[in-house]
Amino acid sequence: MTEPASAAGNRAPLAAYAERIAPHNLAPLWDRLHHLVTPRPAGAARPALWAYDRVRPLLMEAGGLITAREAERRVLVLENPGLPGLNRITTSLYAGLQLVLPGEIAPAHRHTPTALRFVVDGEGAYTAVEGERTIMREGDFVITPNWTWHDHGNDSDRPMVWLDGLDIPMVQLLDASFVEPYTDDRQPAARPLGDSLARYGSGLLPVETRHRGRTSPIVSYPYDRTREALERMRRNEEWDPHQGLRMRYANPLTGDHAMPTIGAFIRLLPKGFATRGYRATDGTVFSVVEGSGRTELDGETLAWKRRDTFVVPSWRRHRHIADDEAVLFSFSDRPVQEKLDLWREERD
Amino acid sequence: MTEPASAAGNRAPLAAYAERIAPHNLAPLWDRLHHLVTPRPAGAARPALWAYDRVRPLLMEAGGLITAREAERRVLVLENPGLPGLNRITTSLYAGLQLVLPGEIAPAHRHTPTALRFVVDGEGAYTAVEGERTIMREGDFVITPNWTWHDHGNDSDRPMVWLDGLDIPMVQLLDASFVEPYTDDRQPAARPLGDSLARYGSGLLPVETRHRGRTSPIVSYPYDRTREALERMRRNEEWDPHQGLRMRYANPLTGDHAMPTIGAFIRLLPKGFATRGYRATDGTVFSVVEGSGRTELDGETLAWKRRDTFVVPSWRRHRHIADDEAVLFSFSDRPVQEKLDLWREERD
Amino acid sequence: MTEPASAAGNRAPLAAYAERIAPHNLAPLWDRLHHLVTPRPAGAARPALWAYDRVRPLLMEAGGLITAREAERRVLVLENPGLPGLNRITTSLYAGLQLVLPGEIAPAHRHTPTALRFVVDGEGAYTAVEGERTIMREGDFVITPNWTWHDHGNDSDRPMVWLDGLDIPMVQLLDASFVEPYTDDRQPAARPLGDSLARYGSGLLPVETRHRGRTSPIVSYPYDRTREALERMRRNEEWDPHQGLRMRYANPLTGDHAMPTIGAFIRLLPKGFATRGYRATDGTVFSVVEGSGRTELDGETLAWKRRDTFVVPSWRRHRHIADDEAVLFSFSDRPVQEKLDLWREERD
Amino acid sequence: MTEPASAAGNRAPLAAYAERIAPHNLAPLWDRLHHLVTPRPAGAARPALWAYDRVRPLLMEAGGLITAREAERRVLVLENPGLPGLNRITTSLYAGLQLVLPGEIAPAHRHTPTALRFVVDGEGAYTAVEGERTIMREGDFVITPNWTWHDHGNDSDRPMVWLDGLDIPMVQLLDASFVEPYTDDRQPAARPLGDSLARYGSGLLPVETRHRGRTSPIVSYPYDRTREALERMRRNEEWDPHQGLRMRYANPLTGDHAMPTIGAFIRLLPKGFATRGYRATDGTVFSVVEGSGRTELDGETLAWKRRDTFVVPSWRRHRHIADDEAVLFSFSDRPVQEKLDLWREERD
Repeated sequence: MTEPASAAGNRAPLAAYAERIAPHNLAPLWDRLHHLVTPRPAGAARPALWAYDRVRPLLMEAGGLITAREAERRVLVLENPGLPGLNRITTSLYAGLQLVLPGEIAPAHRHTPTALRFVVDGEGAYTAVEGERTIMREGDFVITPNWTWHDHGNDSDRPMVWLDGLDIPMVQLLDASFVEPYTDDRQPAARPLGDSLARYGSGLLPVETRHRGRTSPIVSYPYDRTREALERMRRNEEWDPHQGLRMRYANPLTGDHAMPTIGAFIRLLPKGFATRGYRATDGTVFSVVEGSGRTELDGETLAWKRRDTFVVPSWRRHRHIADDEAVLFSFSDRPVQEKLDLWREERD
Repeated sequence: MTEPASAAGNRAPLAAYAERIAPHNLAPLWDRLHHLVTPRPAGAARPALWAYDRVRPLLMEAGGLITAREAERRVLVLENPGLPGLNRITTSLYAGLQLVLPGEIAPAHRHTPTALRFVVDGEGAYTAVEGERTIMREGDFVITPNWTWHDHGNDSDRPMVWLDGLDIPMVQLLDASFVEPYTDDRQPAARPLGDSLARYGSGLLPVETRHRGRTSPIVSYPYDRTREALERMRRNEEWDPHQGLRMRYANPLTGDHAMPTIGAFIRLLPKGFATRGYRATDGTVFSVVEGSGRTELDGETLAWKRRDTFVVPSWRRHRHIADDEAVLFSFSDRPVQEKLDLWREERD
Repeated sequence: MTEPASAAGNRAPLAAYAERIAPHNLAPLWDRLHHLVTPRPAGAARPALWAYDRVRPLLMEAGGLITAREAERRVLVLENPGLPGLNRITTSLYAGLQLVLPGEIAPAHRHTPTALRFVVDGEGAYTAVEGERTIMREGDFVITPNWTWHDHGNDSDRPMVWLDGLDIPMVQLLDASFVEPYTDDRQPAARPLGDSLARYGSGLLPVETRHRGRTSPIVSYPYDRTREALERMRRNEEWDPHQGLRMRYANPLTGDHAMPTIGAFIRLLPKGFATRGYRATDGTVFSVVEGSGRTELDGETLAWKRRDTFVVPSWRRHRHIADDEAVLFSFSDRPVQEKLDLWREERD
Repeated sequence: MTEPASAAGNRAPLAAYAERIAPHNLAPLWDRLHHLVTPRPAGAARPALWAYDRVRPLLMEAGGLITAREAERRVLVLENPGLPGLNRITTSLYAGLQLVLPGEIAPAHRHTPTALRFVVDGEGAYTAVEGERTIMREGDFVITPNWTWHDHGNDSDRPMVWLDGLDIPMVQLLDASFVEPYTDDRQPAARPLGDSLARYGSGLLPVETRHRGRTSPIVSYPYDRTREALERMRRNEEWDPHQGLRMRYANPLTGDHAMPTIGAFIRLLPKGFATRGYRATDGTVFSVVEGSGRTELDGETLAWKRRDTFVVPSWRRHRHIADDEAVLFSFSDRPVQEKLDLWREERD
């Protein structure tokens, strides 16, 4: 056998070969491997912050540009500056800020992506899921599970803004997207307000559960209960040096994350607390519920205050410093990474 | 081969044979099989009722007979009339009514049987489990899991009576009983009142859970939350013709029964409701929280009112009829039967 | 308050009280607690051994006493000498040695107790479970799961003896016994020999599994495959100082124990190997498949050889010493204790 | 409020608005929604087939272009014609055909993507995973789990070709890629050949399992056992009209799919069998192990024979028709879709 071209440093025959095999839907791995399987997470997502006081006027302006009928789509996509045109805030997640004006409704439909809504501004709009309405208040965490009928409306007299988080990029990757419009704009209210929380969030469960799927049956996790749980842990001073006080929203039927595709978390940082350096493989979106502070990443600082949204990409070492007592909501793809044995963290 | 003795109807050689093999620790199955594996549940447990107004005076009398130091044991065992001397209310469960007088304490210890306490009468005593105290009120359901330190005390000015339910017969069968006294009468209060409920019963869970074992981390399921959940379901009129409205106490970490050995349930029957005939293989102990009514079994009727305890043995067909709106707490070995593929039910 | 009787050391009033409450189906816990919840496992089961060369003649004698039609019951119960009349080899398990003579059949039926058969002597009889026959050879481990149709027969020309292990005492405790005879003596052979092993034991599973329940779908775990697995581990010298080489029979659909109520194990001890002191809460029945040796318990020694059966009760410290290379099959209630958070072990 | 621009059909203000918000990393959802969440799976992947007799010469030619040291990368990526430049055979999976020449080795390393190898041509090369070597033969299914050390080599005198299947696009989406080279080219052989199959594939499991993660501990599922399992089901004529006979490779520790990210299947189609129309959301890669036939999709036919590879994208209705008795190996992302509640199928 003569000396292979590659060893001789002569790349021309390899290029010719690559060109020749392309029409057969073949490609040489040796040209591509280092891009495909990188030694460390190398996604293009970058740290970024969306200050609410800059976004809100633009959102309100959209309120004048887009009709009520299109309110369903009156969302500003928070697009990661490292992933332009891809509608992603991390490599695997979509996020947007949605405005629903007084009197508007977002018509009922269902789809295979799972959505979370985290209420950023306003009070009194509703989300209805499978016949149960929930009134939304700041800090509430609301789920519209995969393939459930849902609609939104605002019967209050104030604009309402919430953060949408969806697993759209995962559904795209798996090529499993389905959408179906409801026959009417609104679903009939089949269940009283707060029904699922009372039913599943009281420590009891129905003996025969009709609930299907891996997503929590609880429509809304209201902020007052969430805040009380944090307060309770604070009394025991359960500070994790890398996290502050952190809890996760859970599915009472399984104890697993509230959604199979997106993990949601809440954390309390007391005034002046600075977490130690930490990184994990789940790129994470944060929404500031209370207080202000900053997040330091290698060579970059994101200064945040109430209602801001920011993102820390996968495997970027970072620290949170609270100027005032702060509460941060966050979400990431951690449940998926855990299920696929991919999740890692590193603590300084 | 000559005709075997058995076929000839001559049992004498068989009896001689049985006697001869006995010293070898052998026994003939043919004499015993029909007792061992019966065509239908054939346990000796019988339906029975303990009227609280008859038991209470006897319990108070015990208060004068037994010192405070022995208060730990100031319990009247509810012994099934079909199982005399066996300390069992069903074939697999122990139950008793425990009295703790003002100022008394039941010293701290731990053991492998799991206990539930269901508060029947009084308010203000406490149970402490692994450093967390919970104040007990009527209708509260309190768990002291397998091998957790626990103690009770009554700092109120009223006698306190609760129903104890334990899996002692199962632990005996498995020959896995361990007990350890605590170094002191009381554990130090390491956690605030209501800590576990706020921590695990708010829809959130700690990200890193230190909890071990299959029993719920919630120490007390207070009656006000339980009642609210029932009330919520009533608004949707979710009546099961065989059960009324029935829910089970759950472990928020798994969605399973609150205890691995004992299932606990709560049910609402509206005034005048009569359930259809039903039977299941889990012999069940009931405690009447509200209202009055009766339970009809073949040829027998148990008339019950508030604070009474009664038992329906395995596979006994029965109906509940509520004279007033009634709430019934109940417990049984159903989780074990489910785990072992033995549980069955039959609905008329 | 006057001095309580108990403190004064005067037991007479207590005895009178106990007598007075008995008709109300009440009993004083203070008289009974120390028997009920013992500080250490205190079951009455004792170590015992059944030498096969003593049992076999008695079993053959039974062959002449009991007709073929009664062959179903031609079993000698191995009754623990500490539990006379209770038909138990440990506190929670039944065991017996069953003889099926050439030409006999044990008619088809099903029951809620789960049975294991471990072949001790002979070759060529069959067990059929849900339409699948399996030919039995020495060392084979055969399961007849809870509520599956099963029958046995011996089409060979030799007597066949196997060890039966059943969870009868558990089913009794839970009062959940059901039995149903089949319409005929034999089930039709719906599946080829070895079907379930090829189907579920090849590393593959049917995409849509019709199998129900928690018991393994594999009817027979043949000894040749079992022995090969032990041999493989021996090459890597994976000796556990307290166990030798030990594996458990598993359910390929879940990875759990092969049966939900009984754990089955196989172990290899090389010639001269002496395990270190060990005890666990699962009283264990052993059947000697190969070799000879002895098991030392505190102050007692059980000397065993091929085909013998012996029992080590709960929490009895013991050591196994192999004179020749030995293979021991064993079974216990460990899966139940694990599910109920009761299982413990202690290693010297 | 004046008439919104959108309702007036005037898109110019919307375009200006979109431009103005872009620097703020914001994008209007109303322009993008219909691409993001499609009413039906709309991935760009297309049906395609790679005939082995066309690929093999190109692969051999690569053998002369690339040195042995680069053999690790001597792979032709099977790139879906609908996804050019993306190195994907379906939207979520990577596949390639790898050649290892006699005497070559592919150096040891580990990475977070999980790989399967399905042997297409040749016999005698090995894969080593965590110290266990397995000799590869046609039809064998070999796993190198996430983050396990693995290397390949060919000590035989024939070229060896296998199909690689990896979850690279998922690991990219989750941005969780890690790679580590081993200190040496080959791992030491710490375990005998076939060790994991004997240990975990015999119906037994080690009592204390050191295995970590959700991937099967079995390194190689040899074709002879796989074929025997199919043969066994054929005797019972268990034909599924939409699938023929189909089984899945399983993890004996859990009963789940053999890998958490990729499902692997084997199916038998008897001569002349034509499956009924079927579609599912998991785009599937097929490798023809035996026989020949064709797969009909709407308006397209893929004619296949032994050793060919072909792909059916998500939600494309298709039928398989076997000219000769055929065995098809296949793999897809079905385990991920199941875990995320996204998998659907439709049967004509």
